[in-house]
Amino acid sequence: MRAIFEQELEQVGEGLLQMARHVQAGVRDASTALASADLQLAEQVIAADDAIDAIEAELDERCVTLLARQQPVATDLRVIVSGLRISASIERMGDLARHIAQVTRMRYPEQAIPEQARETFAALAEAANRAATDIVALLESHDLELAAAIESDDKQLDELHQRTFTTTLSPDWRGTTTETVDVTLLARFYERFGDHAVSVAQRISYLVTGDLDGVSSD
Amino acid sequence: MRAIFEQELEQVGEGLLQMARHVQAGVRDASTALASADLQLAEQVIAADDAIDAIEAELDERCVTLLARQQPVATDLRVIVSGLRISASIERMGDLARHIAQVTRMRYPEQAIPEQARETFAALAEAANRAATDIVALLESHDLELAAAIESDDKQLDELHQRTFTTTLSPDWRGTTTETVDVTLLARFYERFGDHAVSVAQRISYLVTGDLDGVSSD
Repeated sequence: MRAIFEQELEQVGEGLLQMARHVQAGVRDASTALASADLQLAEQVIAADDAIDAIEAELDERCVTLLARQQPVATDLRVIVSGLRISASIERMGDLARHIAQVTRMRYPEQAIPEQARETFAALAEAANRAATDIVALLESHDLELAAAIESDDKQLDELHQRTFTTTLSPDWRGTTTETVDVTLLARFYERFGDHAVSVAQRISYLVTGDLDGVSSD
Repeated sequence: MRAIFEQELEQVGEGLLQMARHVQAGVRDASTALASADLQLAEQVIAADDAIDAIEAELDERCVTLLARQQPVATDLRVIVSGLRISASIERMGDLARHIAQVTRMRYPEQAIPEQARETFAALAEAANRAATDIVALLESHDLELAAAIESDDKQLDELHQRTFTTTLSPDWRGTTTETVDVTLLARFYERFGDHAVSVAQRISYLVTGDLDGVSSD
């Protein structure tokens, strides 16, 4: 591990970790609220997203201040620029958890997900929870095995996203049009959640190894 | 207009403008391909997105190099950091144009959008084209009236996105489940395109006026 990572990112690392913990709770609660049509929990996720946005704004300020004060050169700069990118992705993951909660609220007291798709959504929730938990752990430990685990979670989210199409487009699908719309959007939110998780994992890996290969754009 | 904007952003401005022009062509062609089930044009949009991603990677490198070479202080830094944010949003707009083309390709030789939703999608295409064209013009002229026009285009995209729900959830909807899924996803792509356009417009406004009020996060 490069020493530079430890020194520089510590200053923004705490903010990123705080954001990631909020997202971890947000996506877990959003999935629970979705599965149980829990209006109160959905409202809580929606309200909590403001906190993530506030930390992001503060963190971005801190990054710019850090750049100005330290006048850092190439490598250090990359750390801080990466910090800005990572915060944008984590913030977006918070938005997606909020979107899941918003669909739950919109359909209350009905359940948004019909019986036929519930198993897939339980698996989507599990994979998203794992990805969010692994991001928190990766920020804490810089253990690159976690980055590989996040890529695997994302692959599973992609497969489960595809499976929702197989379900809704099968002749056996008995869902209403509203349910088709909700399943389509909700699966897309989980799939995007995975994409952002991978982007975060790749950027953290880059900071640890200095190897930019495989870092996708935002 | 602050002189700093002219001096600093010129160095990244050309790259942003190049990206924005690609996106302008991409979303226009993606919408044309969608409306006419034009496979060749859809393929062209999908292939062209790689060029946008390549310019973004190069631009980001240039921003970091600029930071390292110039050791800029607060205001100048904000310009470059904003440049990084703007490039990420424009890149994402390119992805969304590609997603529209991918749905077109997947349904070929059928049209993805059924008759009942075509008028709404023609309006979505128009609003997205206006937003993309205005971003190119805003990057060229820094005329803040264009930023206001982009906010208005986005508002229209939001309304049209909502209208697709009214259409698919109406008792008159005769679309198949595949058509419901496609309409839901495609409308979402246009809606997100508008959100990113506003993010770009707000960040450019901030660079011109120095006023961060109303700049939303990514």
